[in-house]
Formats: sequence, C-alpha cells, structure tokens
Amino acid sequence: MTLIDDLIEALGTETVLTGNAIGERYRSDASTTGKSLPLAVLRPSNTEQVSLALAICDRHRQPVVPQGGLTGLAGGANARGGDIALSLERMSGVEEIDTAAGTMTVLAGTPLEVAQMIAETAGFLLPIDLGARGSCQIGGNLSTNAGGIRVIRHGVTRDNVLGLEAVLADGTVLSSLNRMTKNNTGYDLRQLFIGAEGTLGIITRAVLRLRPLPASRLTALCALESYGHVVSLLKSAQRTLSGLSAFEAMWESYVRFNAEALKLTFFDKTYPFTIIIEQDVDGSDEDRDRFEAFLAKAFEDGLVTDALIAQSEKEARAFWSVREGHLMDQLMPGLINLDISLPVGQLDAFAGDCQAALLARFPAAHVSFFGHVGDSNLHVGVWVENASAHDLHEVDTIAYDLVRKYKGSISAEHGIGTLKRDFLDHSRSQAEIGVMRRIKAALDPNGIMNPGKVIPPAV
Amino acid sequence: MTLIDDLIEALGTETVLTGNAIGERYRSDASTTGKSLPLAVLRPSNTEQVSLALAICDRHRQPVVPQGGLTGLAGGANARGGDIALSLERMSGVEEIDTAAGTMTVLAGTPLEVAQMIAETAGFLLPIDLGARGSCQIGGNLSTNAGGIRVIRHGVTRDNVLGLEAVLADGTVLSSLNRMTKNNTGYDLRQLFIGAEGTLGIITRAVLRLRPLPASRLTALCALESYGHVVSLLKSAQRTLSGLSAFEAMWESYVRFNAEALKLTFFDKTYPFTIIIEQDVDGSDEDRDRFEAFLAKAFEDGLVTDALIAQSEKEARAFWSVREGHLMDQLMPGLINLDISLPVGQLDAFAGDCQAALLARFPAAHVSFFGHVGDSNLHVGVWVENASAHDLHEVDTIAYDLVRKYKGSISAEHGIGTLKRDFLDHSRSQAEIGVMRRIKAALDPNGIMNPGKVIPPAV
Repeated sequence: MTLIDDLIEALGTETVLTGNAIGERYRSDASTTGKSLPLAVLRPSNTEQVSLALAICDRHRQPVVPQGGLTGLAGGANARGGDIALSLERMSGVEEIDTAAGTMTVLAGTPLEVAQMIAETAGFLLPIDLGARGSCQIGGNLSTNAGGIRVIRHGVTRDNVLGLEAVLADGTVLSSLNRMTKNNTGYDLRQLFIGAEGTLGIITRAVLRLRPLPASRLTALCALESYGHVVSLLKSAQRTLSGLSAFEAMWESYVRFNAEALKLTFFDKTYPFTIIIEQDVDGSDEDRDRFEAFLAKAFEDGLVTDALIAQSEKEARAFWSVREGHLMDQLMPGLINLDISLPVGQLDAFAGDCQAALLARFPAAHVSFFGHVGDSNLHVGVWVENASAHDLHEVDTIAYDLVRKYKGSISAEHGIGTLKRDFLDHSRSQAEIGVMRRIKAALDPNGIMNPGKVIPPAV
Repeated sequence: MTLIDDLIEALGTETVLTGNAIGERYRSDASTTGKSLPLAVLRPSNTEQVSLALAICDRHRQPVVPQGGLTGLAGGANARGGDIALSLERMSGVEEIDTAAGTMTVLAGTPLEVAQMIAETAGFLLPIDLGARGSCQIGGNLSTNAGGIRVIRHGVTRDNVLGLEAVLADGTVLSSLNRMTKNNTGYDLRQLFIGAEGTLGIITRAVLRLRPLPASRLTALCALESYGHVVSLLKSAQRTLSGLSAFEAMWESYVRFNAEALKLTFFDKTYPFTIIIEQDVDGSDEDRDRFEAFLAKAFEDGLVTDALIAQSEKEARAFWSVREGHLMDQLMPGLINLDISLPVGQLDAFAGDCQAALLARFPAAHVSFFGHVGDSNLHVGVWVENASAHDLHEVDTIAYDLVRKYKGSISAEHGIGTLKRDFLDHSRSQAEIGVMRRIKAALDPNGIMNPGKVIPPAV
C-alpha cells in the first residue's frame, strides 16, 4: 500500500487531507520564507492518532512537519515540497485545572488565548503571553519556547511547563505529565522537546503552572536621557517593585516613528529612551502610593527626566500601542524584525554598532530598536526600501556577525526554523551543534521529524 | 601504558591520587549506601584537565564517578569498586559577577555558601539554598537539581541556571555559557546535564541567575486545625504576600517530637498542622503591617487558630529549629528520610495512607511528616528500631508503591543515585526510561560516566 492509503486506512479520510482539500492556511507560517503545498495534511483528534500517523510515516521514511497556530516567524512550521503537515488544531481543550496546586492540563492544539481565559475564569493567571495569543497554540508556544512580555516576572515558557506528553518519530508516546514543582527522577525529558521546534517529536499535551491573578496593574511611561539610566532604573525597579511584570525600552527613533504614526504625544519632546514599567498589584491605594514614590525617587535621583502614570486602562493601552508599533509593519512593508539577546549592560552598545554597520551598507535604511530589556531581549527593526532577497540576507549577516562578536544570541524568542538555521553557529559552538545532531539521531533515527529545521546539515 | 600511567603522564602526580593517598572523604557521600575505595581520585584544576582525564578514561573504558561536596543522600557520588572518582574540589571560585544583568559565573567546585556570600557582598541573593550549603558544591547542586527552601519564590535550581560548561565522556568540552534570560537557539543542552547526576558528563562551570537581596524577612509560625486550612492558607499567602519565600508545613507528630527534643513551646498545645511562613520585604513598617493584616484575616476567616510573628532573628531561628529537626537524626539513629512529591492537594491523604501502611507492617515505627508544601514536596521520617537492610527496603517499597498509586514522584529533590534507581519505574514510564537510555548511549557510548546510577539496567 502507498503511504497515503496507509494513513487513510489508519486514520480515516476526514483526518487525511490531500490535494485541493488542503486549505491556504497550511502553506506557510507567519514568516516570509515562501509558501508550499504539503503532500498531505493530517488532522488527528487524539494522541493515539498522532502515534499511528508518525509510526506509519516513519515506516515510509516520510518527513512530517508539525503545525500549530502558524504564527511562527522563523519558518519552523513550513512544509517543504513533499513534506506531510500534521496539524494539532483538532486537539484543543483544557482537560483539568487543579485549583489547590495551581496547574492546568491542556491539549497542544488549544489556542493560547482560550487557555488564558479559562485560567482567568478559575481565578488564575496563565503566565505565558505574547502578541499572537489569539491564533497561536500551546503546542507551538512550547515547541518554540515562545517568550513574550511577562518573562521578567514569571520566567520563560520552559519555566512554566511542569509536564508534557510527546510522541516520538516511531510512534512511542512519551507521557511525562508531571504536576509537581519538584521532581528529580532522572533526565528532564520535557525540556528537550521545549524549544526543539518539532524536530524531536510532537508535543500533544502539557501541564502548565498557573499563578495568582493580579487584582490590577499599574503602568508608567518614563523618559530617560541615557542607557546608563535605563540599567539603573531597571535595577531599582527589580529591587523595589515586587510584582514588576514588564520593563520595556524603546530607543529614540522607534518612539519617534510610532508616536508620529499614531499621532500620540506624551512628553515635550522625544527622549533618547522611553520606558514602560508595569507592576502587578492587589489594587490598594497603598500600592499606588508606593509606585508613585518609586517614580518620585527615580526623578530625584536623576534617572528619570519625565514620567506619566496611566490614569485608566485606556491610557495604559495608549502607552503600549507605541511599543507594539503595529503601524510600522503597514507603513514599512517588508520590515525585518530581528530578535536577539545580549547581557542587558551591552544592549545599547550593540544597538549603536548595529545601526552604524547597517547604515554603512544601506545608507537609506530605517533602523530602530526596542526591547524587553528586563529579559536581555532586543528587537531590531530594519527597513530597506525595495530590498532584494540578497539585501535581506546581507542585513541578517551584518546583524548576526555582530551578535557573534558580542557573544549574544541570534534568537531570543522567535526560534531558529529555517530562517536562522545557517546562522546557528553564530551563537552555538560546533560541539553544541554536534551534540544536537547526536540527540536528534537518538530520538529520530530516520530523520522524519521536521527535517531541515533548526540544525544545519553536517558538512 | 596502563590507565594510571596515562593519567599521571597527562595530569601530573599531584592530580592523581591512588592507594593510601586517597583520603576517607572520597569513599562515600552522605547516604548510607556503604563506603568504597575508588581505584584512583583525580583532582583536576581546570576544564582542560577534566577533558584530558575523561578522554583517557574513555579510551580505557574506565568508569568515572564525579564528586562534589559529597552531601548527596542517594548514593549518586559513590564509587563502586574499580571506579575512578573525579573530584571538582580544586576548581573553585567565582569568575565574574555582571551587576547590570544580575548573573554570576562560577566554577563547579565552588562551595554553595561561598558563592552565596560573594553574591551577597555584591548586593545580590543567589537563590539556590539548602541545608548542606557549607559543604555542597555548585556542580553537585546542578547535577542533582538540588531543591531546597526558597523554591516557592525563585524556582528550582534548573530555573536559576542560565548557562553551563560540561565535559562529555570523550573529552569534548561543551561550552554553553549563555548569560541571557531568553535564548532560543536549538536544543537546551544545559537542561540535560542538570539533574543527570553525572551520568551524561561533568559540569565544570555555570552562569547563575542572581536576584535582588531582600532587605529583611518576616517570619510567622501558625497553628492550623486541618489540611484543608493549610491549602487555603497557602493559596491566600500566594495571592497576598508578593515576596512569599517559604511555606513549610509540619504534621503533628513531627512538631511534637522536635519541639519536645528542643524544649521549645510556642502554643498552648500541639495542633494538627504547624506552618512557617516567610516573606521577603524591603523592611518598612508598612510591610510589617501588611503581614500582620494577612495573618489577622486568616484568623478571622478561621484558617489559622493561633499565630506568632518572630520579633527577632533569634525567634525566627527558633521556629526554624523545630522544622529542621536536627536532633531527630541524633535521637533516632538510622532514621530514614523519604523525599517525595505529590500535587499539593493530596499530600495529607498520602500521609495518612503512608502512615497506616507503614504501621501495619512495623507497629512500633515512628512516622512523621513535614514538607515544603508550597513546592508539593513531602518528607517522611521513618524510624524502625534496629532495622535490618531488609526492613529498610520494605519501608521504601511500601512508601514508593503508594507514591506510584498517587502518581507522585519518588524523588522531589534528593535525586535517584543508586538508592532509588530500582524504583525509578514507580515515577517514570518504561518509554521514558527507554528514552533516557537512548540519550545516555548517544552522549556516552562507552558507558563510562557514573555507570550504575539513576537508570536501571535494561532487563
């Protein structure tokens, strides 16, 4: 029997889409690496079906690309010609909330926002959060170790996963649905699948850690004169504001562009650095007084030149709208968003070097910076009008060569996928990449799991 | 040339101890699994020497046991007859503190307390902390993912490690000395070595995350009538006390024994549950008022029957002395300290079942319970007078069979070593153990790294 016959016999026709039945959505993630029609799309409804599907594909040496919400920015979920896509979209739902322990068991295809809302209804915060929350799925969030905006308070995604279930290439179901904070019983297999971008197996279920739901949130926008002040303000905030939940920095050209585009003015002029600080609080007047006292002290100490505390949720959203910069993508079609990390003390030095190097090559480029500074994460927006594929590659090369020089990371939160694969050695040593290959071969000896992603081919 | 000749030629005689030169300390960790003289003890002074030593041993198919501070309780650092021990004791020191980023780069042989003190001098808290801090070493803390008493606030050890350097069996130096919070560049190799108890390689260096040093700490001792109240008080504390840094529960028989032994009385009688709550604060009167208000509310709500706030550090230490129960080990020689975890809501039901099962077999046994309840971690103290090795094994079997029934973990923080190795399948599936074997074979094909530990032999 052929592969497709085998799959249909095991899973049924409604689970195996081929040809015209394959919708547009399965052809590309949110990166710009091109569209491609998969050989087939599998839509299993449970772990057993994922296991059956992979065992059959493994027997046929058939490459399989796992697909979640397809919001990734690195090409990790794109099928190459001839690949089969396996979508988790029918495996959606929260199976259990343990309110005593503060944990949630959830299927991999559950949209993040759905899981967040169910947690909230039960009185909890699901601390994993990012802009694509409406479409992205938990399985994809875990597979890419998606970062986001609350990391400074609650850690990266991998810190919020207590257990998971994954299916290996040969169909083995690996159930590590641990629900405890402490569990030292041999190798931490769950951490292997988190961030592996589907190259070691498919995550089907997870136990996530929940946090108390903050009663309310205080938000301030601050104007600062130097990066030294930014680092000092961050340290002071980390020491003083115990529920510090965001510390976002925008460099001058980023603020100028986005505030103008949005027709928003907050201060008398645009300062070298604009910071958003948020603190989760229990909602008392005392908390507000403390937050104000913190800012007053920062003003007295000369760290902050001007500051505004949001008087309403609407005002807080206005601060964030500048930071989110949604108009930038519209006004600068083809804008490149580089996602790197460096020790926090070096972010501005890197920004200066990076801007100079990019402008030396592309004098008309628009280069701007913002970052989740508290997490050492810098985003670089680069826009070169009518850029060719070759130009785009040159931008990457210039930026990542500098990242290597600074011993930083070429991917803070977006992952590697195909887009950054050939730059992996800029952040990881040949010894590390060699060990990744050994682990890949141990878990997926026929190399069917998302081949061509993350790990560059051996020379 | 013989193995020892090879080692001496490469490393020098002062690095290779044999025969009578091997001191008593290298013969056993803090478990009671017996003493054994290693074939040799290697004391490398740097990563290159570790690499040379392992490459030579690998060529000779010579088993190697890494040794840190030898405070482990599961036999993981004990040499079997014929094994070579490799001690990290000469690789000690803090190499760098990045005060902007809040990170510390430290050699594996550094005693935990030394690293803590250096962090404190620089104005930071190193959040890894446990009772053996004076003797245990960072490399061992990471290799066992050592738990401890501040996990509720700062996460387990693996959450506080940003990067590490490890040497593989064949001498490959794997340098992943990442210093950033966010770094999504391929597989997270560091997590593989953390908790692997030296079976995949030897950790030589690490980058640790530091936290702001709390200005002071508030400590309360509370008397509660039921476990339902304990869980409600924990939830309330997690919601209300933002710097909650300890939530420890003692069951009645544990408190009675230890308070009597220490001649300490806090309440009018011994209650079913005694809780220690600690909160890190900035030291203002306001914080104290809030802490008092939290306890007053718990009293009003009927959760807490009586409570004391420590008026001095001395008083806080007195609370902790009951919890630490040091006299228990002295008064009950051969006391077994089981270390398990279960979802927090089930700890008391388990305690009841476990006590009943143990007393059914050993009617004169003393069974007591305390736990880092906020981390789902329960310790069971079992004392059977003049217990034989067979009795001890029966105690383990009774307790771990129950843990399996509850889907808990047979090791919350102590690790597996040899003591729990043959019970590993009580908490991990055959599929998981199979994957552990595949990873072990991929990284250590000749099986020289700490053989016989953690993973049970394939049948």
